[in-house]
Amino acid sequence: RSFYRPIVSTSMEQQNKSYWAAVETQIDSHLKKSITIRPPTSVFEPMHHLTFSASKSTAPPLCIAACELVGGSPDDAVTAASAIHLMHAAAFTHQHLPLTDGPMQVGSTVEHVMKPNIELLTPDGMVPFGFELLGLSEQAQNNSDRILRVIIEISRAVGSQGIVDGMYQELVYAKGEGEDEQMVEYVCEKKEGELHACAGACGAILGGGSEEEIEKLRKYGLYVGMIQGMVNGVGKKLGSRLEIANKWRGLAIKELEAFHGRNVHQISSLLEMD
Amino acid sequence: RSFYRPIVSTSMEQQNKSYWAAVETQIDSHLKKSITIRPPTSVFEPMHHLTFSASKSTAPPLCIAACELVGGSPDDAVTAASAIHLMHAAAFTHQHLPLTDGPMQVGSTVEHVMKPNIELLTPDGMVPFGFELLGLSEQAQNNSDRILRVIIEISRAVGSQGIVDGMYQELVYAKGEGEDEQMVEYVCEKKEGELHACAGACGAILGGGSEEEIEKLRKYGLYVGMIQGMVNGVGKKLGSRLEIANKWRGLAIKELEAFHGRNVHQISSLLEMD
Repeated sequence: RSFYRPIVSTSMEQQNKSYWAAVETQIDSHLKKSITIRPPTSVFEPMHHLTFSASKSTAPPLCIAACELVGGSPDDAVTAASAIHLMHAAAFTHQHLPLTDGPMQVGSTVEHVMKPNIELLTPDGMVPFGFELLGLSEQAQNNSDRILRVIIEISRAVGSQGIVDGMYQELVYAKGEGEDEQMVEYVCEKKEGELHACAGACGAILGGGSEEEIEKLRKYGLYVGMIQGMVNGVGKKLGSRLEIANKWRGLAIKELEAFHGRNVHQISSLLEMD
Repeated sequence: RSFYRPIVSTSMEQQNKSYWAAVETQIDSHLKKSITIRPPTSVFEPMHHLTFSASKSTAPPLCIAACELVGGSPDDAVTAASAIHLMHAAAFTHQHLPLTDGPMQVGSTVEHVMKPNIELLTPDGMVPFGFELLGLSEQAQNNSDRILRVIIEISRAVGSQGIVDGMYQELVYAKGEGEDEQMVEYVCEKKEGELHACAGACGAILGGGSEEEIEKLRKYGLYVGMIQGMVNGVGKKLGSRLEIANKWRGLAIKELEAFHGRNVHQISSLLEMD
């Protein structure tokens, strides 16, 4: 099932649907080609499984769309998009890992096909594998500065000041009482916002965007990711939920104004989802 | 307590002891400077703790010694050595994590100061942080090709074909019966051998060594790491343990022959430990 599920369905939405389906297919093919099941199969079989069974994130397709918006080809961003998916899938698996004090994701209902030790170790292999893909990519040869920048961007987004902080604060929040708007906003920003911000920035970097374009697509990605955080359940008991999401949607659209005249409808359709 | 504990103690051993102490101090200072306790403290305090409480590995100092052996300065390799320590400390923490089916490290007696969810998440931040340090290092500016190569080397050594495979096979082996020489050798190679091989290769790359020197120091590191694997308990019930370690020691020394006339006694003293 695709991540793209528009609220209404006009011919424009149909076009966007085809666009995102093509982007997803490209990322999936790249990942399938990279993660062949080879020895040690005890390691590559679970990696294959966890890569493709994790929830789909909008961050990898956003990376490719950002690259195209600044004039790059999807091929320039497909390795980064694949690496971002690997990081997302690794974090997703660890968040549902059965620890002796319960999983990080309170109320997790994910079905565990593999043993806990495999679900611990496999993501530990997926994260460096993502960095290896970037290091071995064609752009690493021709454009090593861009790839190094992408490596730094991804490191930050998935590390202690990004997803890791978001997952930890979500747990703290879930175990506490009441609904604090500020806390919900923080978790949305850290857990999904920064990965999407990174995806937007990386796409723009790899597509050869200007510094201004990179920063605009970073902020656009941030709001898209924060909305996704809410769509995926953060702050679901918050009364002002829809209001906040609408505020973020407005801020996101504002970041795209500078791209007036270009093919903005594709990337902006990420804001029109359920 | 330093990792360097020579069997005998002559003036040469005293010199080596001072050398390794200085190298360890340099790596520790670099890590302390990099991991300051800053917001979010819920994330950086545990990172600081786990980085410095994990067992010391010989791989980071080996990286610096390899760099010096090919004519580089210790400063050229200190970021890579620090990143290698972060990867080692992250893997060490995950190996002792209390999962619902027990820790990966059968018979683990590590004291857990923090909750399981913190011991799961913090290493997930340490690994990308190591890559970020490399991406931000001075050499990334001046010598981006070398740093990209080091990123690939480290990704491979800590991922699914390195430490992750070694930890998994060690668990399979620990749960089985008997002592299979081949299996012990495999676990030693994957769990510590490849990280040390990577450390040797990265030091040589960063020090500007030739391809031949890089490969010789990779192999030297491999044997040093395999011996360390045995020192640290892999195959401790194996009757032929000492024989095998001696065989590896001989092979390691052979790799250093090409460096005749240079300051080989420092790096080779890693083979004279308890």
